[in-house]
Amino acid sequence: MYFKSFFDKPLAQMAYLVGCQQTGEAIIIDPLRELDEYIKAAEDEGLRITHAAETHIHADFASGLRDVHRKLGAKLYVSDLGGDDWKYQNMPDDTVYLTEGDTIEVGNVTLDVIFTPGHTPESISFLLTDKGGGSSVPMGIFTGDFLFVGDVGRPDLLEEAAKMEGTTDSGAKDMFKSVQKSKDLPDYLQIWPGHGAGSACGKSLGAVPVSTLGYEKKNNWAYQIEDEQAFKKELTTDQPEPPTYFSHMKKINKENIPLAKDTRVYPIASSQLTDLVIDLRPKEVFQSAHVKGTINIPMTDTFSSYVGWFVNYEEDLTFIGSKEDADEAAKQLQQIGYDRVKGYLPAEEIEDTVSSLTIETDEFIEIYKKKSPDILDVRSKSEWDEGHLDNTEQVLFGKLLEEDIPFDAEEPLFVHCETGVRSGIALGALEKRGFKHVINIKDGYEALRGRI
Amino acid sequence: MYFKSFFDKPLAQMAYLVGCQQTGEAIIIDPLRELDEYIKAAEDEGLRITHAAETHIHADFASGLRDVHRKLGAKLYVSDLGGDDWKYQNMPDDTVYLTEGDTIEVGNVTLDVIFTPGHTPESISFLLTDKGGGSSVPMGIFTGDFLFVGDVGRPDLLEEAAKMEGTTDSGAKDMFKSVQKSKDLPDYLQIWPGHGAGSACGKSLGAVPVSTLGYEKKNNWAYQIEDEQAFKKELTTDQPEPPTYFSHMKKINKENIPLAKDTRVYPIASSQLTDLVIDLRPKEVFQSAHVKGTINIPMTDTFSSYVGWFVNYEEDLTFIGSKEDADEAAKQLQQIGYDRVKGYLPAEEIEDTVSSLTIETDEFIEIYKKKSPDILDVRSKSEWDEGHLDNTEQVLFGKLLEEDIPFDAEEPLFVHCETGVRSGIALGALEKRGFKHVINIKDGYEALRGRI
Amino acid sequence: MYFKSFFDKPLAQMAYLVGCQQTGEAIIIDPLRELDEYIKAAEDEGLRITHAAETHIHADFASGLRDVHRKLGAKLYVSDLGGDDWKYQNMPDDTVYLTEGDTIEVGNVTLDVIFTPGHTPESISFLLTDKGGGSSVPMGIFTGDFLFVGDVGRPDLLEEAAKMEGTTDSGAKDMFKSVQKSKDLPDYLQIWPGHGAGSACGKSLGAVPVSTLGYEKKNNWAYQIEDEQAFKKELTTDQPEPPTYFSHMKKINKENIPLAKDTRVYPIASSQLTDLVIDLRPKEVFQSAHVKGTINIPMTDTFSSYVGWFVNYEEDLTFIGSKEDADEAAKQLQQIGYDRVKGYLPAEEIEDTVSSLTIETDEFIEIYKKKSPDILDVRSKSEWDEGHLDNTEQVLFGKLLEEDIPFDAEEPLFVHCETGVRSGIALGALEKRGFKHVINIKDGYEALRGRI
Amino acid sequence: MYFKSFFDKPLAQMAYLVGCQQTGEAIIIDPLRELDEYIKAAEDEGLRITHAAETHIHADFASGLRDVHRKLGAKLYVSDLGGDDWKYQNMPDDTVYLTEGDTIEVGNVTLDVIFTPGHTPESISFLLTDKGGGSSVPMGIFTGDFLFVGDVGRPDLLEEAAKMEGTTDSGAKDMFKSVQKSKDLPDYLQIWPGHGAGSACGKSLGAVPVSTLGYEKKNNWAYQIEDEQAFKKELTTDQPEPPTYFSHMKKINKENIPLAKDTRVYPIASSQLTDLVIDLRPKEVFQSAHVKGTINIPMTDTFSSYVGWFVNYEEDLTFIGSKEDADEAAKQLQQIGYDRVKGYLPAEEIEDTVSSLTIETDEFIEIYKKKSPDILDVRSKSEWDEGHLDNTEQVLFGKLLEEDIPFDAEEPLFVHCETGVRSGIALGALEKRGFKHVINIKDGYEALRGRI
Repeated sequence: MYFKSFFDKPLAQMAYLVGCQQTGEAIIIDPLRELDEYIKAAEDEGLRITHAAETHIHADFASGLRDVHRKLGAKLYVSDLGGDDWKYQNMPDDTVYLTEGDTIEVGNVTLDVIFTPGHTPESISFLLTDKGGGSSVPMGIFTGDFLFVGDVGRPDLLEEAAKMEGTTDSGAKDMFKSVQKSKDLPDYLQIWPGHGAGSACGKSLGAVPVSTLGYEKKNNWAYQIEDEQAFKKELTTDQPEPPTYFSHMKKINKENIPLAKDTRVYPIASSQLTDLVIDLRPKEVFQSAHVKGTINIPMTDTFSSYVGWFVNYEEDLTFIGSKEDADEAAKQLQQIGYDRVKGYLPAEEIEDTVSSLTIETDEFIEIYKKKSPDILDVRSKSEWDEGHLDNTEQVLFGKLLEEDIPFDAEEPLFVHCETGVRSGIALGALEKRGFKHVINIKDGYEALRGRI
Repeated sequence: MYFKSFFDKPLAQMAYLVGCQQTGEAIIIDPLRELDEYIKAAEDEGLRITHAAETHIHADFASGLRDVHRKLGAKLYVSDLGGDDWKYQNMPDDTVYLTEGDTIEVGNVTLDVIFTPGHTPESISFLLTDKGGGSSVPMGIFTGDFLFVGDVGRPDLLEEAAKMEGTTDSGAKDMFKSVQKSKDLPDYLQIWPGHGAGSACGKSLGAVPVSTLGYEKKNNWAYQIEDEQAFKKELTTDQPEPPTYFSHMKKINKENIPLAKDTRVYPIASSQLTDLVIDLRPKEVFQSAHVKGTINIPMTDTFSSYVGWFVNYEEDLTFIGSKEDADEAAKQLQQIGYDRVKGYLPAEEIEDTVSSLTIETDEFIEIYKKKSPDILDVRSKSEWDEGHLDNTEQVLFGKLLEEDIPFDAEEPLFVHCETGVRSGIALGALEKRGFKHVINIKDGYEALRGRI
Repeated sequence: MYFKSFFDKPLAQMAYLVGCQQTGEAIIIDPLRELDEYIKAAEDEGLRITHAAETHIHADFASGLRDVHRKLGAKLYVSDLGGDDWKYQNMPDDTVYLTEGDTIEVGNVTLDVIFTPGHTPESISFLLTDKGGGSSVPMGIFTGDFLFVGDVGRPDLLEEAAKMEGTTDSGAKDMFKSVQKSKDLPDYLQIWPGHGAGSACGKSLGAVPVSTLGYEKKNNWAYQIEDEQAFKKELTTDQPEPPTYFSHMKKINKENIPLAKDTRVYPIASSQLTDLVIDLRPKEVFQSAHVKGTINIPMTDTFSSYVGWFVNYEEDLTFIGSKEDADEAAKQLQQIGYDRVKGYLPAEEIEDTVSSLTIETDEFIEIYKKKSPDILDVRSKSEWDEGHLDNTEQVLFGKLLEEDIPFDAEEPLFVHCETGVRSGIALGALEKRGFKHVINIKDGYEALRGRI
Repeated sequence: MYFKSFFDKPLAQMAYLVGCQQTGEAIIIDPLRELDEYIKAAEDEGLRITHAAETHIHADFASGLRDVHRKLGAKLYVSDLGGDDWKYQNMPDDTVYLTEGDTIEVGNVTLDVIFTPGHTPESISFLLTDKGGGSSVPMGIFTGDFLFVGDVGRPDLLEEAAKMEGTTDSGAKDMFKSVQKSKDLPDYLQIWPGHGAGSACGKSLGAVPVSTLGYEKKNNWAYQIEDEQAFKKELTTDQPEPPTYFSHMKKINKENIPLAKDTRVYPIASSQLTDLVIDLRPKEVFQSAHVKGTINIPMTDTFSSYVGWFVNYEEDLTFIGSKEDADEAAKQLQQIGYDRVKGYLPAEEIEDTVSSLTIETDEFIEIYKKKSPDILDVRSKSEWDEGHLDNTEQVLFGKLLEEDIPFDAEEPLFVHCETGVRSGIALGALEKRGFKHVINIKDGYEALRGRI
């Protein structure tokens, strides 16, 4: 048996390639749309990707499942469980719909389907047995977003992002059952989860890529709580707010998804900037001089996790930055199904710039003590609940373009997050909303904690 | 002024980027469809590609001119000369049609249009003056396929490839006039041609990328012949046969050309091989074991110059090789406007292979002396004319799929070219035509010359 | 905790980086000399490599342990066990020498030392506990060459390669004890071995990178045999012959190792070829035309596993091939401590070439049946034992330059291996030994099996 | 004949490869120490670099001439002219020392030596004739730092950088003669200079890589002045100050130069920062938070042109930045012969940071008008001469670590250059010199000109 995992850092996402050398067949589990890396790995081992399976309808990225069929001719395997709302649509004719107890055979490797709802109603896991290697016992389990290293999947994405009322509660209940059910599986099983550290699909994912069931039983909080109510409370409390693009992902992953296309971006002139402009430069460079009302999301590995808040799938956007960054940003946006990037303005060509005001921690404290300035906290509600400055209002940075901001736009407004990253993003959004005098508290609440 | 040339080795093609730093504008001359390199060079200098011009309707590659407009919004400049058959069609509304004496202004750089037909009826050249640099005299001239380093463009492509009768003669006449006319230009002009060594657009192109008019006047054969008839004879004699794809290029470059798309190729199964299969592996590897009837064009820098003979724009093809080579091959095919590659079979997966018979020079000579075997010479007619074995027939390697091959397919057939490269390509083509016993004379006529 | 594994394909070797985000410290376990990949991974996570540990004195590659100290200033941790013959020499002053029960602390991660001799007398394993992650139980174990996925380390390398008599037997005994001892550890432990599929350090390593102890207890043959004698017999039977370079590795890894240097290789002229020349081209290309007596080891991922047989650490060598391949080959040679590459001859420049004779399976069978030709089988002794042609002699391909070859060099000699890869390497070696008429049986014993 | 030019952007330097396909030989002219690009280009054409020549002893980069001999075995050709002070030392035995009228033969290409002193006393040019191409007239001339596109080489580097008194005047005189002498050469000659736009070896180099002699005669200022005195005045006026590292380059290029070595840089801890620290981050990032007294030279294509001012060849230095940038910076430093980089501190690990004060143009003007603040202009003397603020002092940014700074370090000090790049570099240097309150005028004199 051949086994390889693929970690996509921007999405903190894991896909898996499993092959049988004896027959040359291979399966890809939870693929992204960018297939080249999977193909090359298979080719290096003399394998052909003949099967593709998915643990559930993903909410956080555009699934590559259909592309594996369209480009490689692979047979697709998806969940048939979870009720009518969660049926895959527009699938190839020979798609196999799976229920508990079904088996996928990839040469001499078998994957047994286990129903593990909770994160979503249709979620399944795949228990792998390497029969070709002579084993009669399973080696590990692909858990998708059911079981992570140190956590379980959150059940509230549908309710939060897709506004499907009541689904959080039933999901939490399902998750409790799935966890209990998994206790019967042997300790030595490897756990191959759908996400690693950094994903919005769970709240405390570890930075270790693989675990074992026995280890999780001893360490994962979800296995320590025997009471369903307590479990549900713990599971649904303090989950970070999911990005707004999640509901769109759910939809296209369920219904259909267009073929990925060439995402390269071409330069535009200043006059062609769209209503929504993402500035890809480092935050200090942006704050020193930028086009008013543009949103600064620096091109780093975490770009995806911020940009999903601002993308509107019905509208175009443009970038400010270099060709290299713009091409990479567009590629990451296509991973979340957005393909309306209309070009980028090379950073050297920006005109009529403004600079942002920044205030150091000490200086802010002095002002804060003297008078009571307007202060906006752009961290999440749960962070705010854990501690915040007096006399502040909280609006999550990702919602600044749509939510009511309870301050006078003509007055000076101090803004902060935890470390200065999200408040940097907020600056342009507040300019766009008409605020005239925004001052960024440079090092955020982290530097203020305990000092005020 | 900023100046940069771009050499595409597979096509032996040159494009030029010229910019004016004072205004930030730039022009690209004779662009390919792959624009990224041009864009990055411009961006590095703080320039924007605002203009694009073409010296003539190209026959040897798919022009990127329209893409520069579609992707970058640049204004296009093309020839309005040469008569009704040579009008660009379906161009953007603001396209500028040029005649002798017109001037393109790119910031403070000017390009004066000079009518230089011969290679084609509508060919123009651009005389560059760097006014921004303070010069009142021209610096150089973009000659397209009029004037090369050491040669002039051939006038016979239309007649040969597009079967337009009589055009060779009128082209040769035009070329004579264009050469005479250019003698009035100053010696110190730089010559920036449209092709370098290796192109099929001229017969003796040098491997020096730039020349000067004064140097060409002294060394280029075309400036040494004062008599029109002698010039025409020299120009039209012994030109290599143009690849069959040239006529298609002419057509799409004149009429329109679809947007370049993602050319990546995906693996297929053995059963999905098409009628035409190109095997991309080194010739020795192919000859040791290959699928019968597949055509071996190894993936090297000269791939383009061979594959154009076999491509049928109405039919699909597939490759045999690695993903890396297949992707590169498909990219080169898109440069000549072909985008029907349906996948590649990884080389490890080929089945039911045959090997080619190869004979060393000495051994062949022995056989040749004893009896009179069937021998096919797949070099060009002009090479054959310069010397060949007795009792051979000549059919150019690129025409083996369509022309009559005057031998009995059941009998042993010895095949050779000059060095063994083209006969290697011929092997699969002859198998495809039903020849049962093909023997490749390993080192070709080069090793036989003077010994037989 | 942060965890990342690194797989070096040419050596089938695994190194591991483990870090504690709370303190920013990290440890690298069993590093190669090429550190860049480790450094970048650490830097991406905000970690500094402050510790480096080794499970044992490696025999199959040049250890990077000392380099981690010299270049990064990390503290080194090595085994103090196994007796006087196995003491690391010339180590930095602050090196920590480990015995059973010692603990390495890397921030809040701890590694407990377990003595697991067998592969070598000083071998230790590291049991990892993620205390920073809140766990009081171990997560996994770095087993080095004690325990692999599906196998255990071979105990005979010292005797075979370094000619240390009696060590195989005592090693096998140790290994039995180490296996028994490990049974007390919990099933849920992850197993992080020192090698994956393709290594010469074990005979049946799986292609799955990670396992669990519970799974190995059920599937690994070493856990199924309770009888020491039977275990020892199984362990020491049919191990592949270790490459000759292993003894040199042992020595430099124990005593000292020079700093890695720039390995780039420069072109030479034909006259500068050394006595030992490695030709890096594909086997079919080599066999078609090569310099007599040069050894063909194509530049693939398995280059390392073949070249180690031919390298003499006291003598220079040169390559034939491209700059790209020569640079990569020299890099791989430096990984096994060899740095005497004196240049490469570009393949285009080879002169006075010979071609190898190749025979197809069918044709060989005919000859074989008619008369009794000289046949040399260059597979390993254990492959030969499992089945071979009548009237053949066996000499391993890697020993052809030194061992007696019991045939008349003036007579035709047929040579084969299993698939044609190793017999391709043998061709040049036999030429070097003076054989005049070597004929390669193209598809090897694999194609003959059952047909003769 | 084969011809290829190589442009190194950081050094604005040009090297040339010329080969003869008929004999397979090639010459490299004015090589850098990094040879790989030259080798690959030669190999692609089936050429071997058998000769290497130098136009003069370079002052601005570490010559690769000796490396071409040491690594490739090429024969070296250098000037024997200019007097005893300008003799190459420690050269290989078979080095050819050239004087006017000598000829280098590279296969069928010939290079005739012309003595063209001025930039340096020993400078020579090479007049190329492509005899293999059938020409009896020269094609072009390698002019080194004698003749550039639009300029001639400056004669004052020795006096300025190496403090050799009187050499400027005699050099200017030589240059006048060299220019006059070159007028006899034909107009159609191509000019292949040693530098392009951006070099410190001339003051107004164009961004066009190649010119012709006829064009230069008409446009280059040096050909317009017939009077020697006027020429000398023009030539020696307003030359930018040469970086301090030039004198060291002269010395090692004349006397000897060690073999280039692996320049990779490894991470260090904060405590290991050296006295001189170069911070490689973008200026806005540096100014927002940096280690006091570190010098900010962002890692861009112009890194080389700034860093040469601060490097002390007798002392170590360290970087702050990423591994990628540190590796690139060290590589560029080795191009100017500096190899004492002792590591880099990853930017995430900087501690005890300070931020720089920045003032916008409008705000500064207000202050400037009210009172008379201390202002330091860090542009060059010649820029200062062309216009500056009242009541300022001028000290070139590159000399801030050594020269007297005529202000009170306890008082606020405003600093500016032309656009904010060099004043950004000055900030750390002023901190290092003990200035307590440095305020950077963000957009420099460019934004102030005409407004004050």
